[in-house]
Amino acid sequence: MTTSWVTELRAALGADSVLTDPDVTAGYARDQAMLAPAGTPAAVVLPRTTEDVVAVMQVATRHGVPVVPRGAGSGLAGSSNAVDGAITLVMTRMDAVLEVSPADRLAVVQPGVVNKHLRDAVAGYGLFYPPDPSSYDWCTIGGNLSTNSGGLCCVKYGVTTDYVMALEVVLADGRVLRTGRRTVKGVAGYDLPRLFVGSEGTLGVITEATLALRPAPKRPVTLAASFATTAQTGQVVERVVTSGLVPSLLEVMDNTCICAVDALLKADLDRSAHALLVAQSDSGGTVAVEEIEALAQLCREAGAEFVHTTDDPAEGDLLLQARRMALPALELLGTTLIDDVAVPRSRIAAFLDGCDAVAAARGLTIGVVGHAGDGNMHPTVCFDPADAGQRERAYAAFDDICELGLSLGGTITGEHGVGAIKVDWLEREIGPVALDVHRAIKDALDPMGLLNPGKVFRRASVRDLPAVAELTGR
Amino acid sequence: MTTSWVTELRAALGADSVLTDPDVTAGYARDQAMLAPAGTPAAVVLPRTTEDVVAVMQVATRHGVPVVPRGAGSGLAGSSNAVDGAITLVMTRMDAVLEVSPADRLAVVQPGVVNKHLRDAVAGYGLFYPPDPSSYDWCTIGGNLSTNSGGLCCVKYGVTTDYVMALEVVLADGRVLRTGRRTVKGVAGYDLPRLFVGSEGTLGVITEATLALRPAPKRPVTLAASFATTAQTGQVVERVVTSGLVPSLLEVMDNTCICAVDALLKADLDRSAHALLVAQSDSGGTVAVEEIEALAQLCREAGAEFVHTTDDPAEGDLLLQARRMALPALELLGTTLIDDVAVPRSRIAAFLDGCDAVAAARGLTIGVVGHAGDGNMHPTVCFDPADAGQRERAYAAFDDICELGLSLGGTITGEHGVGAIKVDWLEREIGPVALDVHRAIKDALDPMGLLNPGKVFRRASVRDLPAVAELTGR
Repeated sequence: MTTSWVTELRAALGADSVLTDPDVTAGYARDQAMLAPAGTPAAVVLPRTTEDVVAVMQVATRHGVPVVPRGAGSGLAGSSNAVDGAITLVMTRMDAVLEVSPADRLAVVQPGVVNKHLRDAVAGYGLFYPPDPSSYDWCTIGGNLSTNSGGLCCVKYGVTTDYVMALEVVLADGRVLRTGRRTVKGVAGYDLPRLFVGSEGTLGVITEATLALRPAPKRPVTLAASFATTAQTGQVVERVVTSGLVPSLLEVMDNTCICAVDALLKADLDRSAHALLVAQSDSGGTVAVEEIEALAQLCREAGAEFVHTTDDPAEGDLLLQARRMALPALELLGTTLIDDVAVPRSRIAAFLDGCDAVAAARGLTIGVVGHAGDGNMHPTVCFDPADAGQRERAYAAFDDICELGLSLGGTITGEHGVGAIKVDWLEREIGPVALDVHRAIKDALDPMGLLNPGKVFRRASVRDLPAVAELTGR
Repeated sequence: MTTSWVTELRAALGADSVLTDPDVTAGYARDQAMLAPAGTPAAVVLPRTTEDVVAVMQVATRHGVPVVPRGAGSGLAGSSNAVDGAITLVMTRMDAVLEVSPADRLAVVQPGVVNKHLRDAVAGYGLFYPPDPSSYDWCTIGGNLSTNSGGLCCVKYGVTTDYVMALEVVLADGRVLRTGRRTVKGVAGYDLPRLFVGSEGTLGVITEATLALRPAPKRPVTLAASFATTAQTGQVVERVVTSGLVPSLLEVMDNTCICAVDALLKADLDRSAHALLVAQSDSGGTVAVEEIEALAQLCREAGAEFVHTTDDPAEGDLLLQARRMALPALELLGTTLIDDVAVPRSRIAAFLDGCDAVAAARGLTIGVVGHAGDGNMHPTVCFDPADAGQRERAYAAFDDICELGLSLGGTITGEHGVGAIKVDWLEREIGPVALDVHRAIKDALDPMGLLNPGKVFRRASVRDLPAVAELTGR
């Protein structure tokens, strides 16, 4: 039987935009956080315009149906996992780059634009959209905005929110908010764009974004260095920070990752090394060469086993390839639970050692790969899910790593988001007053609790997790 | 007669922290926006600790007394102007730099720290806190946070919000919120720090801030260039943007300012020039020389009358001095109304021409000085306040300039804030939906409407402007 709100949605958006076949909707129920809880969508809706999204939110409000916005589904925290009985609102059809303005160095895009498509669209103007999550060739800008995505570039160029000038957002009740501006500076009222960025679809549905661009980076110079101890690696990162060097990329892999990548790529990596650093400068010309030479000197002073630099971009890509293949290589060792803890940059060595201790205590393999330059680490627990004991220990190790991050003054999520997997940890990290403020803002903007319920934090009231069957009359 | 809440405040904070002598409190009634409306504070309170601020907000909540937070009073929009019958909460005694961490490149400060004191405190570590409002040698970090201050550095280094990692905020009801983190990245929950930054004291009282720092800039190379037309100036700015040049400073002055400064400094400026550009690069060494030479070439190609460059920092300071003295020079021409419009960078020439047209139509002198590199302009209306007709035309010109800014896709305030002087304009710029969202957030965090009432925007309800006499029983 078709519920009345599905009929209303089909009338408003057209039948081809409203999918209810369970075999089809199941394909939209999950993101890449394979072990996160997910429900079953009552309908999957694919809007083509802002007006379509308005119609969806009006119907949802009228019938009290929850709505879970999502993009391509590349998320790693279950932020866009389906909620039983809810609408999953898939933004991928709204995929136009509406404007590129070299004179104001900005682009206006719809949320379904793939990150790489935006990068390609602005490259022809000599421009650059920096945020580069690993999934940049298939993740969407809307998802990037919702989770405030980072990537490899953050050490020099910051994260998604640093590029957001203006947003169009459809609110829970269907009103259209346009907020922000096309100017570089502006302080007229509260910074609403940055409130929506990173809110994981709990406050509104982003339907358009005006994004700042940068001049294209220059030809990179690359460094790779290996170390016998994590303390040496930590010392390099600390000296990079204190010396004022700003590489465009500064990545680290631990011994587990080095061995896994070497097994996959046959790249002749030093399997005895305890850590491998890969860095780049994109400052161009002699400046880039000088920056990388200064970094090489810091590595040598810290006692690096091996330091190699190159100004050949192709060779640089090969060195980076080792870093990029770390997660695929770890996946060959078992099912992976990818954590996402960020620590103050001065605590990186302590964090790497702590992850080793967790692996030993839990009797599991944990490979750590991360953005050393900004302290955002991805310890990845590898395990056999068919082994109940291993599975339980893997979850325990995942929690140990969050605990370790907090104990070092860090955060439970640097760039993946809270989603469905870290709700308890979020409440632990931010504490009761901040939780109350989150709830107050959520109640102010989404009083019925329709948008992505149960994600990020729990609401205070019983409206928390609506009894959907009851609300929708099914 | 002393009201009961004053007695309670004196008991909690000590008598020397609670001032009620009207001759004394009058000194705290206004900021630098001389023509903005201001009331009379019932009491001026100078807390020494976060606990003092908690006590103030608890008393204020209990008795329904409004509270106007303020720093040094350097504001240019009346944001911290007194409200009749309210407490003016002066944060200048909380002036400690609590920590400077070179290893994590951050500082932790109390809100009463003067911007220059922070700059000096971190300089010894080779570090740099970029936001540099003109009043940097006496304005406080708390005020900078409340208005999201900019300055000359924004074209390369951004504004205050770009440096805020964490905040401690006392909420309207006296609860203490600690939000944000010491890590470079972090997406655990909503971006509350950036909601408070720029909220002009309407959402909470900032009692501590963790601020990101940068490596110290290198020895500057400086350029000055004069032009016969504003179109040429606009062309240079546009080509700077499209060519990917990022100077550390790019300032413009119009003919009115050039003549006023020349009269004040006897600096032998070209009084026939229609615009003067001053730019710097702090990239260091040959890079800075190359950047400034590239900029000089753009100026020559645009038809500059005169282009001069220097790598002598003392001579560079002299060239900058002309820019820094623009407002003092204009003040010699009469009382000044300083506007603060930001336009997209591609519209700077149109904006300068528009200001000329406003000056002609209103029969007034308007000098324009501004941050050309980021499009934030300060057209300054000069008039004789004793002449009622001039005064009226000055206010009309001020409004004309806001209108002009909006018509060019700009904003009514780039860095000074809305305060008491642009409440109507704010509602005009952001529109009814965004205004509703502002009101919903304000109601969620300050349901009694105690914090800085009447500033930035009007609340929807009659609680809007509380009848203070009634609330306080005076």
